[in-house]
Amino acid sequence: MTSLLDGLPVAAALRRQLDFLLTAHLLTGVTRVNRLLDGSRGESSAEHSWHLALMAVVLAADEAPGVDLGRVLTMLLIHDLVEVEAGDVPIYDEQRRLDIVAVEEQAAARLFARLPAAQGGGLLELWHEFEAAETDEARFARAVDRLQPLLLHWASDGAAWAERRITATQERGLMAVIEQFWPSLGPVADGLIADAHRRGLLAD
Amino acid sequence: MTSLLDGLPVAAALRRQLDFLLTAHLLTGVTRVNRLLDGSRGESSAEHSWHLALMAVVLAADEAPGVDLGRVLTMLLIHDLVEVEAGDVPIYDEQRRLDIVAVEEQAAARLFARLPAAQGGGLLELWHEFEAAETDEARFARAVDRLQPLLLHWASDGAAWAERRITATQERGLMAVIEQFWPSLGPVADGLIADAHRRGLLAD
Repeated sequence: MTSLLDGLPVAAALRRQLDFLLTAHLLTGVTRVNRLLDGSRGESSAEHSWHLALMAVVLAADEAPGVDLGRVLTMLLIHDLVEVEAGDVPIYDEQRRLDIVAVEEQAAARLFARLPAAQGGGLLELWHEFEAAETDEARFARAVDRLQPLLLHWASDGAAWAERRITATQERGLMAVIEQFWPSLGPVADGLIADAHRRGLLAD
Repeated sequence: MTSLLDGLPVAAALRRQLDFLLTAHLLTGVTRVNRLLDGSRGESSAEHSWHLALMAVVLAADEAPGVDLGRVLTMLLIHDLVEVEAGDVPIYDEQRRLDIVAVEEQAAARLFARLPAAQGGGLLELWHEFEAAETDEARFARAVDRLQPLLLHWASDGAAWAERRITATQERGLMAVIEQFWPSLGPVADGLIADAHRRGLLAD
């Protein structure tokens, strides 16, 4: 695709941006463990990223009015781009999650280097900020990133939990970071897990 | 889903936001005419929305540094939500595009009314701003919304064009709004169409 773009009569920087955007589109081909709410197929990481960004727009109004929403949205839109190379590793595969960290680091460096240097450097920094979870923007974004699949699992009667025989205790452990990152979202996670447990969607 | 959410021990406003977000997720089930770059299936409107937002992040840096990116991104994230009710109508179906306007208006009013009143009203206003294409934010967003499928059609060797026997003249006419909305993106559209025509992806 790069070679085709090379023939376009536009500035070199813009060609690099278009090349990056075409590569990024491959995120639509990365499939996650949770299915669409109609059960028809797995959710793509691109769809997950869109839904996270929409969740951030809607939830920030009351839960995080002080964060810089533009920065949060940009983080959420780019946070999974490394999966174009590294693939999606579900949070339930704890060992593979640890193993993938270095692979994702390299993928991020390579991917953002496709952009003009200053822009690519800025987005790589934002990707690291999300991963480090130290700023308010990153912590809110990380909490939403953890809450979204929980909401979908719950709304789709726990199909992904059942396949993996996930217990309420396991899920509570994995979701504890939601309250750590953004305390006001903790009760939502607790409520969804308690309800799923009561309905037998999460094992004892 | 609403009735399940009613049991959650969280504030009523937050329950309405979660209900809205679950309904919004149905946008993943709305399929567009262009396929993923690997040809495996049609792109969903949720994926399209994510890719538009990412394009806006990347292109705004040089092409639209003065726009309020947070507003642009919010517009792009919500602009197709009406398709949850109204479905996607390709730009090539010009009569149906005219017929669908009133249906989309009603769908927008109903959809955003699921949110707490002030928030829903604000997002409905932003949706109208996008449609009206009068502010800089809306005009840049609208240009990107038109450019994205063109870029994908071009990069996937014009499969969607071939199915509909689209000519270069037709495509040039439909894409003229890109230059009207955001002049600096006009040459990209022209370049892609000229190249596609030269390669026989667009008919004479």
